[in-house]
Formats: sequence, C-alpha cells, structure tokens
Amino acid sequence: MKPGKVLPAAITIFGAKGDLTRRKLIPALYNLYTADHLPAQFIIYCVDYLAVDESEFKKELLEGIDEFSRNGKADRNKWEVFAAHISYIQGDFVKAETYVSLKNKIKNFEGIVQIRGVRMFYFAVAPRFIEVIADALYVRKLCNRDTLDRIVVEKPFGSDLDSAKKLNRYLNKRFKEKQIYHIDHYLGKEMVQNIMAFRFANYVFEPLWNKKYIDHIQISVAEEVSVGKRGGYYDSSGALRDMIQNHLFQLLCIIAMDCPREYEAEAIRDAKVKVLKNVRPFTNQSVFKDVVRGQYTAGVINGKPQVGYKEEGQVAKDSVTETFVAAKLSIDSERWKGVPFFLRTGKSMPRQSSVIMIQFKDSPHKIFKDDIMPNQLIISIQPELEIGLMFEAKEPGLHMKLLPVEMDFMYKEEYKQSLPEAYEALLLDVLEGDATQFMRDDQIEAAWKVVMPILDAWKKSPKRQLIPYEAGSWGPKASDTLLKPYAKEWFRLPVRLADDQAANSNLAAHAPQEG
Amino acid sequence: MKPGKVLPAAITIFGAKGDLTRRKLIPALYNLYTADHLPAQFIIYCVDYLAVDESEFKKELLEGIDEFSRNGKADRNKWEVFAAHISYIQGDFVKAETYVSLKNKIKNFEGIVQIRGVRMFYFAVAPRFIEVIADALYVRKLCNRDTLDRIVVEKPFGSDLDSAKKLNRYLNKRFKEKQIYHIDHYLGKEMVQNIMAFRFANYVFEPLWNKKYIDHIQISVAEEVSVGKRGGYYDSSGALRDMIQNHLFQLLCIIAMDCPREYEAEAIRDAKVKVLKNVRPFTNQSVFKDVVRGQYTAGVINGKPQVGYKEEGQVAKDSVTETFVAAKLSIDSERWKGVPFFLRTGKSMPRQSSVIMIQFKDSPHKIFKDDIMPNQLIISIQPELEIGLMFEAKEPGLHMKLLPVEMDFMYKEEYKQSLPEAYEALLLDVLEGDATQFMRDDQIEAAWKVVMPILDAWKKSPKRQLIPYEAGSWGPKASDTLLKPYAKEWFRLPVRLADDQAANSNLAAHAPQEG
Repeated sequence: MKPGKVLPAAITIFGAKGDLTRRKLIPALYNLYTADHLPAQFIIYCVDYLAVDESEFKKELLEGIDEFSRNGKADRNKWEVFAAHISYIQGDFVKAETYVSLKNKIKNFEGIVQIRGVRMFYFAVAPRFIEVIADALYVRKLCNRDTLDRIVVEKPFGSDLDSAKKLNRYLNKRFKEKQIYHIDHYLGKEMVQNIMAFRFANYVFEPLWNKKYIDHIQISVAEEVSVGKRGGYYDSSGALRDMIQNHLFQLLCIIAMDCPREYEAEAIRDAKVKVLKNVRPFTNQSVFKDVVRGQYTAGVINGKPQVGYKEEGQVAKDSVTETFVAAKLSIDSERWKGVPFFLRTGKSMPRQSSVIMIQFKDSPHKIFKDDIMPNQLIISIQPELEIGLMFEAKEPGLHMKLLPVEMDFMYKEEYKQSLPEAYEALLLDVLEGDATQFMRDDQIEAAWKVVMPILDAWKKSPKRQLIPYEAGSWGPKASDTLLKPYAKEWFRLPVRLADDQAANSNLAAHAPQEG
Repeated sequence: MKPGKVLPAAITIFGAKGDLTRRKLIPALYNLYTADHLPAQFIIYCVDYLAVDESEFKKELLEGIDEFSRNGKADRNKWEVFAAHISYIQGDFVKAETYVSLKNKIKNFEGIVQIRGVRMFYFAVAPRFIEVIADALYVRKLCNRDTLDRIVVEKPFGSDLDSAKKLNRYLNKRFKEKQIYHIDHYLGKEMVQNIMAFRFANYVFEPLWNKKYIDHIQISVAEEVSVGKRGGYYDSSGALRDMIQNHLFQLLCIIAMDCPREYEAEAIRDAKVKVLKNVRPFTNQSVFKDVVRGQYTAGVINGKPQVGYKEEGQVAKDSVTETFVAAKLSIDSERWKGVPFFLRTGKSMPRQSSVIMIQFKDSPHKIFKDDIMPNQLIISIQPELEIGLMFEAKEPGLHMKLLPVEMDFMYKEEYKQSLPEAYEALLLDVLEGDATQFMRDDQIEAAWKVVMPILDAWKKSPKRQLIPYEAGSWGPKASDTLLKPYAKEWFRLPVRLADDQAANSNLAAHAPQEG
C-alpha cells in the first residue's frame, strides 16, 4: 500500500474508557485526521462496558486531546467534524450481544461506503480480556475476511515464555499472522525509526558497526515517573517484564541487527529475531553477576517528595518486584562477539531519558600525549531527539591540546514543527497494512526466552540482591559497577535548557498503560 | 620546550614598513603579549630602509592593531608598555652597517637579559632580499650560535624547482636546517591544525580514510579578493605558484598523509613529503586534460564592480597569468589508489571560502528506495570554522522517507571568544622552537616537482586553454566538468547568516602579501 492511500476504515477500540484511548489513541487519530492521513470514509467505534452519555464521552475525548495532543488544544470546528465519526458502543467484552451490535454497525458503515475497506480492532484492554475479545471477533466473523481485517494488541504479550506461547497459539488459531499487529510504541518513535536509516542509508557508520571498532554499547531508558496508579499491574510485572523484554530489547535489536535483505516487514523482523536468538543465555549464576535489580525507596524527584515503592497503592508491603534493572548482555555473533551490551531501565529516576550510547575503542594511533576520550555516538530518543558524535578536537589556542567536543544533529533545530507521536505513525501503519514496526510472535517468544533465566533465578531467590535505591537517584551503585571495566558510570546526556517539549515530555511519552 | 616557557627573545623584523608587519606580525605579537605568551624579556627590532620618526612609526603600528587585530582596538595602556619593547632601525638591507647596528643592539639587549635567549629574524621582505639578508646575518654572525637563533622565511620559496633548490642550498650553507622556519600561514589556522587531531585522535574516521570508503576529495580555496595592488608580484607568479604549490598542497598533505610515527616535527613532515612524492606526475598531455586555468574578466563581486585582471595595475595588458586553477590529482599509494583529489583556487570569486569536502562512496546496502546522497565530511577552514557530516536520516513524519541532514560542530558556537590568528600560533611556535607547522625544504621541493610539468606545459603553450571567467563567478565551467563523473559541480558551503567574523574575514585572512 502506498503512503497516503488509505482504504475506508472501520476502527474499533475496545477499552474506550481507558487512559490509553483518551491520552494516546484519540489524540493520534485526531492528528492523523487533521493532517489528512485518514481516509475520507472512516468510523471509530468506541467499545466499553460502562453506560455513558455519548456527548459526555466525546467531551472527555476532546479534553484528552486538549491535554495530551502534541499540537495542543483541538480546533473546535475540526473536532466537531471528527467527532461525528465517533460512536460509543456500550457493551461487556464477555457478552455476545456486544459483538452482534458492533457487527451490525460495521456492516451498516460498510454498506454506505461500498468499497471494501479496513477493519481495525484495537485491544486497549487489560490482558485478561485479550483472549475473550479475540475469540468473540473470530466466532462472530468480524475479523476473518482477509488481511484487511486487523487486530492490534498491546503489551504485555504474556507474562513469561509459556503464557506468551499460549497467547500466540490462541491468536494464530483465530487470525492469520498478517492480521495481528503487536504494538510496541517504542518502534513508532521518530528517532527509533531513524536508527535504521542512520545505519543502512549511510556508508560512514556501518563499516565501524562491529566488534573491531566498538568497545561497548549502553541502552538506557530512565523514567522519572514512579509506578503511580499502576501499582496493581506493576507489582505482578516489574521492570524486566514491563520494559526490558519489550522496549529495550527492541532498541537492542535495531542497534545490533544485520542489514535486512530489504526494507520490508518480514526481512526486518527476521534480522531482529536473529539478534535475540544470538543473545548468550543467562545462567542462574550469571544472573546474579550480570543483572542488577533495584527497588526505589522514598526520596525526592525534581524537588517533589516521592514515597517508596512499597508504599505505593496496590503494591504489597513486602513486595520483591524490581523497579530497576541493569543487565549486561553478550551477543554471540560474528559481528558482536566480545562487545557487551548494557541495558538499564528504572522508575523514579532523576529525569526521563532514553538514550543509546555506542562507545568506540581507543584509536590505535597514540601520537597525542593528552588523555584521549574514546569516540561516542549518542542516539537520544527522548525527550531530546538527537544524534551526536563525541570526538577529539584541537582546543582552540596556541598549542596542540585536545579536548572532546560534540558534533550533533538535533531534530528540533531542523524541524520546528512538532513531530508525529509514535501512536500516529503506528496507527497509520496498521491502516496501511505495514507491519514493519510491529513485533512478530517469534520475536516476542525469543525475547521471553532471553529473560526467562532471570525471572526463574529471581523467583528462586526472591530477595537475593534486590537493592534498594532512593527515588530521585540513578539507581543502585551496583549498576555502575556492572559496567566495569568498560565504563565508570552510565552515560548521561547533559541537561539542555528546558523547553516546551522537554517540559511536556513526561506526560506525552508516558501514558500509564505503556510502561 | 614546554608551552608557555618561552626564553627571552630578540625579535627582528626585516621589512618593518611593509603591510605584513602592520597587518599581521605586530597585531599577532601584541596579542601574544597581552595574553602573556611572550617572555618577560623581549625586544622587537623593526628594520627597514626608510628614515622614519619612531613615534610616528609606532603610531602606524598601533593603527594597524586597531584595524586588523582580531581583538579590535588595542588597550592604550597595554600598548604603551608593549610599544616600549619596539625599536625602529633605519637601515638598507644591502648595507653592512645595518647589521652592525642591529648586532650591537641585540648584544646590548642580551647583556641586560643575561639569560641565553632566542634570536628570531623574520624576513617580511620581497624575495630578492632573502639571500642578501641571509648572507649578512651569516657573515656578521648574527644567527649562528645554535638552533636558538632562527630565521623565518615567507613564501614564495623560489619560483620553480630550480630556484627553490638554489635558495634552499643557499640557506642551508649558512644555517642549520633546524634554524630555518618556512612559514605558510595556512598551517597556523585553527581548523587546519585540527585536521590532524580529528584524524588521528579519533577512531571513527581513520578506518574510513582510504580508497575503500572514499569516493573523491575536493579542496577548494576561493578568494573574493582580486589581485588588487599586488599586480606586480602576481603577474609573474599566478595562482598555481601563489596558492596551489603551497597552501593547497599543505591541505592536501594533511588530508592524505598517513599517521606519523609520533606528533613531532620531523615525523609529521616525513609523512607529508611522502604524500607529495606519491602524486602521479603530470605529463604535457594530462596537464591540458586534468588542469583547468582561468583568468578573470570584468564583473561584479558582491554588488561591487571589478575590473578584469588585465586592467589591474602593474599587470601586462596581454598577460597570460592564471588567476584560477582547478586540478585533478592522483596519489599512487596503497591508501589512495583510484581516489581523485580535486584542488581549486581562484581570485575574484563570489565569496571567500576555504573548504575541504570528503565524499564517501555509496552505501553497499540498497534497502531504501529513495535517492541516497553519499555521505560528505566537510571541513570548513574559513571564514566558518566547522566540521560537518552530511548523512541520510529519516524525514520526520509518518513514513520512512530519507533526506540528507547535517551533523555539525562549529568552533564559534562552542568558543565564544575570538580564536588565535594563524600568525600568533606560528610566531609562538618559532619562539618555542616547534617546527611542526612549518615546511621543510624537501617538502617545498617535492611540491615544486609536482607543479613543474604544469608550469612547463603552460610555458610552451601560453594561451592554450586559458579560459576567461567573469569576476564574481565561480570560475570557468570547465572546472566543473573536470569533476566528472565524481560530481556535477564543486561543493559549496551554504551561506550562513552574516556575523562579525564573516564580515571581517576578508581583511583578517588576507593581507596583500599572503595570497
């Protein structure tokens, strides 16, 4: 499908009263609409079990756009036209009548449209409803005509390898693989998508992208937010499941993958799966050597007091759930043998920052007497969108003295308009049938396979090396020690001057459901 | 010698009434003085044949600083103290008494100082006086104690290979090689000095710095100025002698050299000579294929009318002197076999711009359908001091579409203070005995060897392919054709917003004597 040629679409959102819908999905669809990316004929069915007044419901959606859209307040005239495409369907996900009603409405819409279009079913629901809804769609023949009928599933994709396999089998029995879109919003982020362009459309980086030139790689996703209202879900999940197994592994795959045969969904996902399959399996022993887990205690973040994790709502008082993970991974491939990949994520950290740092080896030329800092390539995903290269230059002045400086490219300086949100890109991809930026089931399973030895080891020894760290700190000291001898501490992007995007980034980038 | 540990110095400038002294040498010495780089005990003898009133002379020097110093007007108090170190000696360069008088004064200064210091003799004179002065210094035993006695010679170093050899022999009979500093102010420029740091203190560029990854290299020094008052000298010289044989070949050497054994004058100059020796010799035939020469005709530069070269003062009405040269060079080394180096320089061009552009080959990965621009590394020497890398990135938006963007490092953004002028760096180098940024005689001869076939071919066919180009244009069209099939036209840095440095750059960077 060519960009911009979107077929008529019947979009159904299950979980219409949830935060994801209000903060992400509707603002994204509205922005796609105002930017003329939606087809002329589309309808959005919002399904949830609560009885609500439709105009009241739409008012809530409008407020959601006003609050969370990257473009700020909605234009009232445009909103009115857009909102006319939205229809609330009150219905229990477990009841057949919900789907009968939905099917009638979709049929009705399609009868008017008369062109064979797309049906998209977005599962913005708690995990326990995925199978229920999937089965109902299948039984009621709502999503079974061909690959123009699509379901979009949000993580978590299972809670371990077995449950993920079970879920995949369940879905694969009811839908074709090409109908299933596993969404990981990290893949929709501009800078993440840019990494592939950066690596494979240029000839100056790829020759250096291997064990001969690279010393080590750090992938860090620090969150300023605490678990907040998500304690119930989070306490049974933890940072490893919530962040590492999906978001950070996605970044790892894009950084470490070989060049795919072509820029096409299957080829790209093949290359990514290969990375995960080459990750050296953890053993019970290596887990406690190469993986650091932490749990935040009370502290202060950005001047605001923060309670400890165990004091959060819906969290067990004796919880052993980790809110911080740092791990050292090895990839046993020709390209990466001997190059450690350090992954880190945590909640209640001093600020939000998703950044990848590729550290090169020392220059073999030792002709300068100064201390030389190795080159670092920095890919900042959020809040700044930036690619930078730290290199040594002559310090201006009368003698040859070196100092590290940064060459950089900042998206924000180049493009003054606000950039599309991840959900805009990904929702449009689904409408266009482009699965490139979605996870395939074998990738999900390969990711679980990597983390299973860690989950198992922690389950066996729930309190062993679970290190408390103060909220507002950068996590346990042991996570710096983990980097030895490659680095003394985790790379941190210098704080830039505050600006709108940075100020808004916490909210915009982190809807509660997303992790 | 350690930076900052400068011995007492007796500095003599021959040609004290010339433009170089007023525009460059005295402002540079004054800036070194105010920045505490000169030794506590120093004296500056200004020698010229005119009888002048010393206070009148110093007033002229002060005005020179006010007009040409990078720091603007001199501080009057500091100037008074500095000026007390300056002494004018009226004397004919060809008369013995000049040197007797000079020697007495130096002896007198050294008697007061009592520490064995440096004697520097700067030849800011027309070429015909070099041998005269050198011989007098030798005969009068002014510069013969050891390597603490130094002479500084300005280009032109001869007008062809034979005369250069003769001059070198003449000087080498009278001074040790380590006493002779052949100055090329291009080597003192911040960004030129930075190239070695950039290449050899980093590990991300050098692996790519060869025929496998590089498509071609452009070295361009465009001058906005015409020959102006320099017609007399220039008409017997031309762009090849005035610019290519020295400045552009210096840039070529720094870009193409292998890593020297160590950061030390002899090792660095060995590496540079090797480059010139590997340049494939031109033949009479290849000259007219691979070298384009031009001469400017009347035109308009930056809104101002400019007469044609033949109408300039002291220029022959039927002159065949070239004011523009573009040449394609091959370097027959392991590293560069098959990579063309394009050199270009010209006068009366639309604006001043010294820039090196390294174009990389196409990526072997062809997974994107877009037209992909090869990577370009851009080293801008003046007026902007900047290193930039053009690379392909994803255009922000909802689809994977590529566009070339630039990652850059600008000295001026990083360092708000004005940067040292080339002459400051180089004069201090001489005082400190560091010959790294000076040309060795074998390098000068190797450079002449490269250009001799061109000079010879042009001499044989003075009018053949001497192409007129309009002042204010980028030179003959044939110079673009020369690039085929590597490029369509010469790389040009986009014009940045005007600023002080750019506005002043014409004057500051181009004293009439310098070329």
